[in-house]
Amino acid sequence: MVDKVIHIYVISDSAGETASKLAQAAIAQYDVLDLEVQIVRRTFVSDKETLMDVLQEAKELDAIVLQTLIVDELVVIAKQFCQENGIFSIDPLTPLVDEISRRSETEPNRLPGAMHFLNKNYFDRIAAMEFAVKYDDGKDPRGFLQADIILLGVSRTSKTPLSLFLANKNLKVANLPLIPEAHIPSQLWEVNPKKIVGLTNDPKILNVIRKERMIAYGLNPDTAYSNINKIKEELEFANNLYKKIGCPVINVAQRSIEETASIILSELGLEDRSYYHS
Amino acid sequence: MVDKVIHIYVISDSAGETASKLAQAAIAQYDVLDLEVQIVRRTFVSDKETLMDVLQEAKELDAIVLQTLIVDELVVIAKQFCQENGIFSIDPLTPLVDEISRRSETEPNRLPGAMHFLNKNYFDRIAAMEFAVKYDDGKDPRGFLQADIILLGVSRTSKTPLSLFLANKNLKVANLPLIPEAHIPSQLWEVNPKKIVGLTNDPKILNVIRKERMIAYGLNPDTAYSNINKIKEELEFANNLYKKIGCPVINVAQRSIEETASIILSELGLEDRSYYHS
Repeated sequence: MVDKVIHIYVISDSAGETASKLAQAAIAQYDVLDLEVQIVRRTFVSDKETLMDVLQEAKELDAIVLQTLIVDELVVIAKQFCQENGIFSIDPLTPLVDEISRRSETEPNRLPGAMHFLNKNYFDRIAAMEFAVKYDDGKDPRGFLQADIILLGVSRTSKTPLSLFLANKNLKVANLPLIPEAHIPSQLWEVNPKKIVGLTNDPKILNVIRKERMIAYGLNPDTAYSNINKIKEELEFANNLYKKIGCPVINVAQRSIEETASIILSELGLEDRSYYHS
Repeated sequence: MVDKVIHIYVISDSAGETASKLAQAAIAQYDVLDLEVQIVRRTFVSDKETLMDVLQEAKELDAIVLQTLIVDELVVIAKQFCQENGIFSIDPLTPLVDEISRRSETEPNRLPGAMHFLNKNYFDRIAAMEFAVKYDDGKDPRGFLQADIILLGVSRTSKTPLSLFLANKNLKVANLPLIPEAHIPSQLWEVNPKKIVGLTNDPKILNVIRKERMIAYGLNPDTAYSNINKIKEELEFANNLYKKIGCPVINVAQRSIEETASIILSELGLEDRSYYHS
């Protein structure tokens, strides 16, 4: 165990989302007890002076520099400074941009924050996020008819976070909680079943999660909500509905949101639309 | 203009979020009319056979390989295959992981999907997303007292997408739409003003957005909602409230969600908590 803090300087002329993801993926490979890493975000760096200040800071802390600058002049400055000062630096974007340019015989526009341009794709994503919130939890079944995906599931099968995660990929998602006593909205039968996904979970896991939820709410953990036989009944009700609809069924137990979302996209044959930057 | 499609193979033993972000950042640098790029996601690749099939596919398409494999054996196979077959490949993760290991004298755990481990940090993020949905749009002002951030703003100042974006960074965000006629919930005065951010926008932009919204709803665009004087009144009401609270004010005009979120974090002195993987 080394007690020295490792600083990672995320430097970007935009929001630094790419470099941050990369830094997170790397540090996730270590046990937090073994490692003290501090990620310092220096984002929206758009001029030489600011960049030089940031690089100087990084040098003083003996930081790892992770930069995704796109403005040519800034890329050159960062590269030269790191080289001259023996700073370990990573520039994951330049080789990829260079290769795309070589193959397409097209110059990059070198505009910072091009990913966040206020274009149609961007507004579609915002609209998808608002859609997910509006049509969460079966609030308005009319949303089913406009949705790209409808998620069905009993309580605690990750419907809300999955809807939001998929919204970030420009997909309009509505979700409906399944409760045996409740009425299934008629709109569900008007939807193409190829847009519907049934979520399920292991009864034992649901039992534990729901007990914890009751405790968190300051309630008795042994209510009908957390009763194992009641949970099995609910899951059976849900599975019978899924069979009737003929939709794919995904068990979310032991799966992260990212993994379940990936399976949903592949089951429904949907593309991640966030790539199209038209 | 070249009409050949450029394939980018995103290969990961996890969800491939890091590599996808990198690919998106690169292609965002080109005009979509000049370039035909197809991103092919091959995620959750966890064994040699699948990896070899994927690499073979990439070879046949003369694809650019962008891999964030973490399992040592798979990294070696991918590297060797790309080298032997002259495939242009990028591995942004290995140099960073190697450098962290060198500095910390600690071996990485080499577990795929470590970012999505079902640990406390992960469940905190899910809880933050559910919080954002639950306390969106002033639905329940009791949320103000539990929130890390409270966003205030008139209609169409990006409150909902900002709340969701910040939730992804493990921050609990509640938001309240400001309408001059409506009552300000008493809970707002109990909150530490250092948790509050006031959002504003340019009246002309709001005018255009709101007219479009009315048209999208099939309504007359020239209602009180889109009236420029009415909008100015609303913004004045909001600005007076912000002064009374003493909170920072951010104009969202011409800013992406990512940029505004970045400003909010820096104004409130908040860290992006999604980094801490304890």
